[in-house]
Amino acid sequence: MNQIDHLGIAVKSLAEARKFYEKLGLQVMPEETVEAEKVRLAMVPIGESRLELLEPTSPDSPIGKFLAKRGEGLHHVALHISDLAGTVERLKASGTRLVSDEIKIGAGGHLYVFVHPSSAGGVLLELVEDVPIGV
Amino acid sequence: MNQIDHLGIAVKSLAEARKFYEKLGLQVMPEETVEAEKVRLAMVPIGESRLELLEPTSPDSPIGKFLAKRGEGLHHVALHISDLAGTVERLKASGTRLVSDEIKIGAGGHLYVFVHPSSAGGVLLELVEDVPIGV
Repeated sequence: MNQIDHLGIAVKSLAEARKFYEKLGLQVMPEETVEAEKVRLAMVPIGESRLELLEPTSPDSPIGKFLAKRGEGLHHVALHISDLAGTVERLKASGTRLVSDEIKIGAGGHLYVFVHPSSAGGVLLELVEDVPIGV
Repeated sequence: MNQIDHLGIAVKSLAEARKFYEKLGLQVMPEETVEAEKVRLAMVPIGESRLELLEPTSPDSPIGKFLAKRGEGLHHVALHISDLAGTVERLKASGTRLVSDEIKIGAGGHLYVFVHPSSAGGVLLELVEDVPIGV
């Protein structure tokens, strides 16, 4: 099923961002650290989607560099789509620029690929598909 | 119920954006013009949310100015929340900067307010609440 999987939001301070989103009446989950991405994150579930608040643990990280260049704000949009392999084929055939040419496997076993902002109207767009359990 | 209501995405060309989102397997609805905002838009339903592709009809419009300054990309995030009046009170009490101090009524009868990016971690955040039919 197609849906917005999550929005990745780059923040300087998870503590400050947590206060703000709690004021909206939303629940902010406990923080996790993703060493490979040099980032600490806190999930904010909202309906069938979630916000991912992302604070860099190092200036030398994708989110750290983004903050230095653009300041706080939306970093990427992740859409959950139903036929990732077929979609990637269609995108490649039409010359769409992907951040990496191969579909990757995420920590939770899901498949994902990033479309470069230059091909997606200025949006860093992540396409995600869950893999059925047992496959 | 809390959910992502929509993402507003500023684009130079609806025709180009339509082609891209259709390649993702999404349905892009017919274009509408909102004269008051000097914008043409096309909705892309996705799960319980939607993407709003926004093309300015004039450089002298909020989206036109955004494109000139930042280029194409995500313009705003709209969250559907359940107690807008109470939330706005909490936000004001804590010094949150709103784009306008009053809750406004949108074209579809919904209530909305914008939180200024300086108070929402760099995100232009729209808070939306539906009004029950008959009220």
